[in-house]
Amino acid sequence: MALTEPTNRTSEADADVAVDAAPAAVATIYVCVTCRKAGEPDSEPRPGALLADATATAAQGSGVAVRRVRCLANCTRGPSVAMRTEGSWTYLFGGLDVGGATALVEGARLLAGAADGIMPWRGRPEPLKRGLIARVPPLDFQEETP
Amino acid sequence: MALTEPTNRTSEADADVAVDAAPAAVATIYVCVTCRKAGEPDSEPRPGALLADATATAAQGSGVAVRRVRCLANCTRGPSVAMRTEGSWTYLFGGLDVGGATALVEGARLLAGAADGIMPWRGRPEPLKRGLIARVPPLDFQEETP
Repeated sequence: MALTEPTNRTSEADADVAVDAAPAAVATIYVCVTCRKAGEPDSEPRPGALLADATATAAQGSGVAVRRVRCLANCTRGPSVAMRTEGSWTYLFGGLDVGGATALVEGARLLAGAADGIMPWRGRPEPLKRGLIARVPPLDFQEETP
Repeated sequence: MALTEPTNRTSEADADVAVDAAPAAVATIYVCVTCRKAGEPDSEPRPGALLADATATAAQGSGVAVRRVRCLANCTRGPSVAMRTEGSWTYLFGGLDVGGATALVEGARLLAGAADGIMPWRGRPEPLKRGLIARVPPLDFQEETP
């Protein structure tokens, strides 16, 4: 499926930006483009959209795909970003700002390199520690019996 | 993959409880068994474990699989539950209690029946409205260009 991802990179305004889509992306970052900073008045461009642009730029050449999404429903703690790889846990982060773009790509690469599908805490960029909202196991996950 | 899920239902204490695993589960609910109610003192059994038991019971015969997970990292807003189907958005809920078990199964079935992979708001059980933490698109999701 990932092999058929679009490789159109002609416009920053595209709803989807696949970076280095051949070979398949090592990880996918979903940035909520409608997010605004919690408690702050509405403004355009939305902080989420700025974060998406910055993350797409930071991801160039990294093998990480960046996708813009309209709502991750984490509105009270935005700007919000999710990430996963095929078979990994899915991570959700909030309270990010544009400066978190590099951390997001770094975290996605950490996740892509984790044999157990869990992003290691050690070495995880600081914004992805304090901004952790939740994580969800892969579809076929089974907790080991104690 | 789902077709090879274990069907062992001999013990409530199993780390994984697959309900009606043949045919494949229509949806999977992940219940955090280490969750306690935010702001409340620790106690055993944990509210998350009680919710997992209640959800497994509520799911019997529904085609919905219930899996116990040790941590969904939504600790400040537990008890926490995630759910998804193959190809759907992944939903995360918090602030649930044992009474939410039926709502969870109902929500999972709503999600399983949604052609677009999005749980409809209309008809969604109340605990899954007020308890919504976030949602994450499926791996291959692409936002439609406006």
